[in-house]
Amino acid sequence: MAHTKKKTAPKAAPKITDPGAKAWRLVVEYDGTAYAGWQIQKKAPTIQQALETALTSLTAHPVRVHGSGRTDAGVHALGQVARFVTTAPRIGADAIVRGGNTKLPADIRIRSAERCADDFDPRRDARLRWYRYSVICQDVAPALDRHRLLHMPHAIDWGLVEQALEMMRGEHDFSAFRSSRCTAKRTVLKMDMARHKDESPIHHIDLQCRSFLHNMVRLLVGLLLEIGQGRHEPEVMRQCLEARKKVVRFRTAPPHGLVLRQVFYLGDLR
Amino acid sequence: MAHTKKKTAPKAAPKITDPGAKAWRLVVEYDGTAYAGWQIQKKAPTIQQALETALTSLTAHPVRVHGSGRTDAGVHALGQVARFVTTAPRIGADAIVRGGNTKLPADIRIRSAERCADDFDPRRDARLRWYRYSVICQDVAPALDRHRLLHMPHAIDWGLVEQALEMMRGEHDFSAFRSSRCTAKRTVLKMDMARHKDESPIHHIDLQCRSFLHNMVRLLVGLLLEIGQGRHEPEVMRQCLEARKKVVRFRTAPPHGLVLRQVFYLGDLR
Repeated sequence: MAHTKKKTAPKAAPKITDPGAKAWRLVVEYDGTAYAGWQIQKKAPTIQQALETALTSLTAHPVRVHGSGRTDAGVHALGQVARFVTTAPRIGADAIVRGGNTKLPADIRIRSAERCADDFDPRRDARLRWYRYSVICQDVAPALDRHRLLHMPHAIDWGLVEQALEMMRGEHDFSAFRSSRCTAKRTVLKMDMARHKDESPIHHIDLQCRSFLHNMVRLLVGLLLEIGQGRHEPEVMRQCLEARKKVVRFRTAPPHGLVLRQVFYLGDLR
Repeated sequence: MAHTKKKTAPKAAPKITDPGAKAWRLVVEYDGTAYAGWQIQKKAPTIQQALETALTSLTAHPVRVHGSGRTDAGVHALGQVARFVTTAPRIGADAIVRGGNTKLPADIRIRSAERCADDFDPRRDARLRWYRYSVICQDVAPALDRHRLLHMPHAIDWGLVEQALEMMRGEHDFSAFRSSRCTAKRTVLKMDMARHKDESPIHHIDLQCRSFLHNMVRLLVGLLLEIGQGRHEPEVMRQCLEARKKVVRFRTAPPHGLVLRQVFYLGDLR
């Protein structure tokens, strides 16, 4: 209907070079259960879209939000880091955190907001990413934490898992642990932490690396859990790394056990 | 329509005195978020109703389920105990746990099933009930665990809370901490455990007592949290117990921070 057509073209999101523009760094927590992942998609709800919608409403201008990386559908975050630029005057950290959260659904929260350097890039500047994969080992599936724990009814020998974790530490070519959609050029990465933490019946696998290939955590955890079940020798981990391809078949661990715990930048690390 | 009318009256649930009847004790975990509490209601989904429906389907006869006590809408359980009677032949623990769980929604799980004495009464025979109330103390509400942690943006002095917890231990008249709908005759109860557990930023209040009055845990926690915020002196706890009524006004803590952790019976306790 012509008379309802907007008279002005939709504004673009402000650039950092625009007058009065300021860049902000956000730490964001989310329950990924209801979302098709971080990255905006045309026909499915995403975290990035929800943040852009909330911040657009808050700032009264279009907002683009850039994250430290994409998380898959169903994956959670306690410490996703994102950046956005606003030209709205008089918007401070408190307004962004409180005001933003009133406009966000309850399964996404802005935990903090702080001014950042104009050229801060949450993806490229990240020095370390910490992912935690959590498993509950008992006969019956959990009810209360069903969205955030992988249920393992099989017995797991965590000693075998720890042998394989040991082989992952340090610099390796992780080509065996990337999805076919992975576009990363660099596959040689230094795994700074690869450990098992026992809070029986819950067990965590913590991985820290500067960057991860697409699906790398879920592929590594998938193999680790099959090693723990005795389906493969721990040595298979070393063989996959050295061969730069899967030397046995194994499943990708499902997304709901995975949490992006924290992203570290220069200055965060002592 | 007459031709679709059932020709036989609906069967009643079997009694333990019926031929071949066996009594079973269940341990049940649930996420109370989507339910109007444990007890069956006409127009709202309840845990008890969901269990009866699942077990009726499993046993092919009507089933009545009796729990150790009612939990309010939104309250969770890791270890609710319930009893039911079945005359179905050849139904064992494994069929009840696995078969029952396939018929239950994912937010309710039967954790275990075992044969119990014919006259076992999960409510009357309980020797100790353990409730845990969990709070997260930080500026921003949690996203991932929003259904099971009370968010406290205010600073809490846990030393003050611990002083009040100390006053609750042992035998007291808890009349000050019951809802107007409470029908219990006995209000003098022995609080066997009343402790604070620090897993910052998450804090737990653990209470163990043979039985609790209606809303007692949420009323006690409500006062404890106001004491922790400095709104009342810890001494107010003693005064409420001695006066057998509220000597100050305070709020009932909301249900979603509360979990029925475990119910103990003779034989469970060493």
